[in-house]
Amino acid sequence: MILSALLVSVGINFGLCVIYICLFSILRKLPVHADVYAPRIVAETKNDSTLERLLPSSSWVRMAWLPTEDQLLMRSGLDGFVFMRIYVFSLKVFTFAAVVGLCILLPINYMGSQIYIDFFDFTNESLESFSISNVNDGSKRLWIHFGAVYAFTAFVCYLLYVEFGYIASKRLAFYSSSEPKPNEFTVLVRGIPKSPTDTLSETVEKFFSECYPTLYLSHYMIYNTSKIWKLIDDAEKTYRKLVSLKSTKQSSQRYGRVGCFGLLGPKVDLVEYYENKLEVLEDKVRKQQSLLNGKELRAAFVSFKSRIGAAITLNIQQGQNPTEWLTDPAPEDRDIYWAFFSTSFLTKWIGNVVVVLACTALTILFFIPVIIVQGLTNLYTLEILFPFLKGILNINVVSQVITGYLPSLILKTFLKIAPPVMKFLSSIQSYVSHSQIERSACIKVLWFIIWNVFFANALSGSILYRLNVFLNPKQIPSILAAAVPGQASFFISYVVTSGWTNTASELLRLTPLIFSYIKRIFATESDEEFEVPSLSYAREIPNILLFGLLGITYFFQSPLILPFLLVYFCMGYLVYRHQLLYVYSPKFETGGQFWPIVHHCTVFSLILMQLIAIGIFGLKQLSLASTLTIPLPIITLLFNSYCQKRFSPLFKGYPVELMTKKDKRDENDPTISEFRENLITAYQDPALKPIKFSSTTDSRNAPLLAFET
Amino acid sequence: MILSALLVSVGINFGLCVIYICLFSILRKLPVHADVYAPRIVAETKNDSTLERLLPSSSWVRMAWLPTEDQLLMRSGLDGFVFMRIYVFSLKVFTFAAVVGLCILLPINYMGSQIYIDFFDFTNESLESFSISNVNDGSKRLWIHFGAVYAFTAFVCYLLYVEFGYIASKRLAFYSSSEPKPNEFTVLVRGIPKSPTDTLSETVEKFFSECYPTLYLSHYMIYNTSKIWKLIDDAEKTYRKLVSLKSTKQSSQRYGRVGCFGLLGPKVDLVEYYENKLEVLEDKVRKQQSLLNGKELRAAFVSFKSRIGAAITLNIQQGQNPTEWLTDPAPEDRDIYWAFFSTSFLTKWIGNVVVVLACTALTILFFIPVIIVQGLTNLYTLEILFPFLKGILNINVVSQVITGYLPSLILKTFLKIAPPVMKFLSSIQSYVSHSQIERSACIKVLWFIIWNVFFANALSGSILYRLNVFLNPKQIPSILAAAVPGQASFFISYVVTSGWTNTASELLRLTPLIFSYIKRIFATESDEEFEVPSLSYAREIPNILLFGLLGITYFFQSPLILPFLLVYFCMGYLVYRHQLLYVYSPKFETGGQFWPIVHHCTVFSLILMQLIAIGIFGLKQLSLASTLTIPLPIITLLFNSYCQKRFSPLFKGYPVELMTKKDKRDENDPTISEFRENLITAYQDPALKPIKFSSTTDSRNAPLLAFET
Repeated sequence: MILSALLVSVGINFGLCVIYICLFSILRKLPVHADVYAPRIVAETKNDSTLERLLPSSSWVRMAWLPTEDQLLMRSGLDGFVFMRIYVFSLKVFTFAAVVGLCILLPINYMGSQIYIDFFDFTNESLESFSISNVNDGSKRLWIHFGAVYAFTAFVCYLLYVEFGYIASKRLAFYSSSEPKPNEFTVLVRGIPKSPTDTLSETVEKFFSECYPTLYLSHYMIYNTSKIWKLIDDAEKTYRKLVSLKSTKQSSQRYGRVGCFGLLGPKVDLVEYYENKLEVLEDKVRKQQSLLNGKELRAAFVSFKSRIGAAITLNIQQGQNPTEWLTDPAPEDRDIYWAFFSTSFLTKWIGNVVVVLACTALTILFFIPVIIVQGLTNLYTLEILFPFLKGILNINVVSQVITGYLPSLILKTFLKIAPPVMKFLSSIQSYVSHSQIERSACIKVLWFIIWNVFFANALSGSILYRLNVFLNPKQIPSILAAAVPGQASFFISYVVTSGWTNTASELLRLTPLIFSYIKRIFATESDEEFEVPSLSYAREIPNILLFGLLGITYFFQSPLILPFLLVYFCMGYLVYRHQLLYVYSPKFETGGQFWPIVHHCTVFSLILMQLIAIGIFGLKQLSLASTLTIPLPIITLLFNSYCQKRFSPLFKGYPVELMTKKDKRDENDPTISEFRENLITAYQDPALKPIKFSSTTDSRNAPLLAFET
Repeated sequence: MILSALLVSVGINFGLCVIYICLFSILRKLPVHADVYAPRIVAETKNDSTLERLLPSSSWVRMAWLPTEDQLLMRSGLDGFVFMRIYVFSLKVFTFAAVVGLCILLPINYMGSQIYIDFFDFTNESLESFSISNVNDGSKRLWIHFGAVYAFTAFVCYLLYVEFGYIASKRLAFYSSSEPKPNEFTVLVRGIPKSPTDTLSETVEKFFSECYPTLYLSHYMIYNTSKIWKLIDDAEKTYRKLVSLKSTKQSSQRYGRVGCFGLLGPKVDLVEYYENKLEVLEDKVRKQQSLLNGKELRAAFVSFKSRIGAAITLNIQQGQNPTEWLTDPAPEDRDIYWAFFSTSFLTKWIGNVVVVLACTALTILFFIPVIIVQGLTNLYTLEILFPFLKGILNINVVSQVITGYLPSLILKTFLKIAPPVMKFLSSIQSYVSHSQIERSACIKVLWFIIWNVFFANALSGSILYRLNVFLNPKQIPSILAAAVPGQASFFISYVVTSGWTNTASELLRLTPLIFSYIKRIFATESDEEFEVPSLSYAREIPNILLFGLLGITYFFQSPLILPFLLVYFCMGYLVYRHQLLYVYSPKFETGGQFWPIVHHCTVFSLILMQLIAIGIFGLKQLSLASTLTIPLPIITLLFNSYCQKRFSPLFKGYPVELMTKKDKRDENDPTISEFRENLITAYQDPALKPIKFSSTTDSRNAPLLAFET
């Protein structure tokens, strides 16, 4: 790619960013957009008149910048805090990288003469003259690159270690200072063995009161309530229609047709019709609820009197058969994913195997459309496919837009489908909480985009043929070294297209804005519940990590990418800080369990960078440097294994020391007996609670005692 | 190799076996050899006169055959029982394999015409005519081999599953029925953090009585006693000399020189000299013991009132820093390896890394002497190296001995050094018990001999060049397929040399027999303590598993190996049953933890066999069969992962269900309070107990209370 094409791409995206940010600055001040730009504030104050005050006219940047880390932690939970630490960490890494890269490596690269450059046509100058490709083969100057690789690795490893420790300490502090929560005392037990004499509930009762006579508190059996969920959904919709009908006082709207989208059938009194329908649905729900009695699944939430009791059940094998009495940490009650409860060991195992296979196949085969798209944006291919475009394509600006901007735009659009698909795959993988699904999907999406963005593009289209590379480990460095540096300009363009513009449009919230307009125009029900959105970690974290990977791998080969990345991370830091403080509210709290993903991905990026370095030094005929780089990935792996042992256990559970401290504090707490009483019903399936839409059925609202074992 | 050379090798070894067994049958009846052939009986009865009765003249085979499995379990513990199950399992596998191989595959191989055979010279016929190499390329008959591979895999997997389950159930039953043991209630804690105010012992006391107020019983700090061990060793030797001197009444022997092996220096009264020396040593020991006071290591044995208390400490992270308060299961008190206690996390981690690297390097580089030896036994090389041997080498019998017998004999001798070296490496790897060292060494030796016997020979000498194979995974099947079948005759010869003869010599116990003669001739001290030997699992299990691997990989290519293997396993079954019942006594009890090694090695053998099958079908131009075999290793790996989840947890600890049952039983046991009192002193370091050699120091024999915290 030539420099001017890159400049066009940067220009377009810079313009887009400016437009987005300006639009945001104007629109956010209008109270009518408060539900788009400050939904959290709206939900928290519940009072429209104060909004004007809460959305001050001073710059949003100050609003995002001013709150301290502790305020952020309080408002967005530890997960939001960890999310922002990714930006902080990346900024530190790439500030160092940019200083070394731009001040030392870039001049050295430019001084080389490996690539012929026409000095009189600067705008068309190849970007390669700034990359390591331009350094002469066998030049002693490559030793500076060698030193940079070592120094950068050492710096990143040091930062990784400090950051892992910092987040671990935050996690422990967060746990120590938090109030007692039901999920700390509860475990999810699956694979309860069937007994010929007892019911499942009795089996659970017997087992735990025998094994934990002093610690066991209660249990709550789980039922398959998917049918009831459907009925409740229907009832809710009907109820909402009814409310909106009643609120419109005009009697003309009370009569209408009910068949086929309100177009067919005789005219009826709609209020009466929906009231009848609601009653029928409620009866159905109650019937289904009573039918479930005695049809428990082989799963239950078991609660204990102390945290240590729950920890024992989680960490020590319970029954004589390891496929029975499987325990998992109970999710927070707001976080449970009720829809899919695979309860036996075998279905869980098979589910996992199938999902892993499906996910691998999807990840590997997705690059086929990517390749086709990449091929299409080649000017020559376009001219052949669409000969009538020849005239337009020959215009300088058009050709530069096509080669500079289009490829990454198309790829970006394709990649949008990955997070929902991966979330779906994770959701059928026997996870029981939204947070676990989000975390598992995050890992899947991460590998998906590393493979499909980095490798598919780095090996530039010929990946199917190059797949053999990964079956021949010895060749990996040299093949990567030959392919990766050439794609620097594409990735710079990707950073500005995908990174800059996405971040700016995140601030503008284009989709919710449009939806909000549509709703205002068409919506009849004004009472519809207002829901504060939450940040999708599975969509955002992999993107940030991909940019980190690009920065780390290109750091010593094409330092030109670094300033673009720094702009991206600065912008992202401000934008997401703003969004976490005023837009998104946390839907769950994992206690910072997303950080190990960041750590491992960074280590992977480092090793990739080192392998490419080994390859490049080899290709550049400096085989001594190539050989001397070989210990580096081994040292990095050892460092990672040490970090793994040093910090990872803290992210899987909590130490006995803290648990007993909290348990002791509870004992002196007068409210603990009330908390324990609530604990017994904390994990009741919402579908089994009595429904309360129809106002005429007060007597039926008594709790269904049969389900409160 | 030609058939006659193989027959020579078989003949020699068969002869050796017959001689060994005959010698054993004669020698074992002499009471004078009782300490070699029935040391357990001698140790158990302590009465020579009954020996005649205890060594009946009926065949030893009956003595080994008759006892039931339960009797074996009682006498040799679960580890001995599991050891014998390896033979039972192998016999089942290879009976099936032999039936299929000899009745179906061998005739098909022989009917082929790929290899030219001279029908008039049967004795010189190449063994290859019985192998798959002789089947014509692309022949439809290869589908029978394909079916055999699938059927054999299914059969072995079925057996593996049944056997894993059987041994797991035995392990649980053994645990349930066993008496309370100190190690069930105790954990080893390492990495105790240093506190500025408290001593280490106080820190431990505080931590555990705070975290486990109801469960904590006591703790015992560990000291670095290697200096004292040396002094005690010296004192013991001196004491033994003194006793032997005193027992010889002749005063002529009481005087002698003491410098330089009794050759230099003036003549002194030896009794007086040694008495003085002993007293000095004892004083030194006492001084060292008192010096240790207050110099605890950062490690302690912590005992609990119940098994569940120990299990909690083992399974849940204790402190806020995962590198502190590291817990490991306490070994049995007889099983502790006191010599090397690495107490901090970092030294442990570094030790592990270093040992893994050393072990890998040793394993990979050991094949260099093997290759040289293999090359030397080539007739042609020998003639060049030793031209004067030309005449002898041309004699038919000599050349057949050299090509048939010598290579495997030399290899066997070389391999003898592997188990002690691996045991040494394991012993510096921060293991704290002999059983863990044995288990870890067993795994190391296993990979060592699989690599150095199977791969080094299969890739026949050119392994350095072929090392590239393992860096190019796609090529593995075809390269193995090209190399492995040709070595069938070498491995048959290896089975008879190493397998048959070793087993027979195990029965004769040649080395202990010779030592026993030497001792009888030269020994002066008759009172020396008589020690019953124990079976070295790290030496024996890898050998059996290697033969299993040979059988499984050669099953469909060269079924001729199978009858030789069957003879080996039958002989081994009888011999080791005899040895476990009458010769070896168990020195520790791991509760069957050796079985997972057997399981994984068998799965590895199956996958190797399947990879070779993929390669051979490809080479034989039956690519459809080759492709259809590819799913087989994947299915086998899935099967293994299922077994892993289904059974492995049972081999790492014991389920809560059983622990609480045993704890409850203890509560009703009147002796439990006495047991708990003993528990407090169960883990005292023998080096810190008062020494009691010199008879004059009765008053000093009082226990050193300072060390009984």
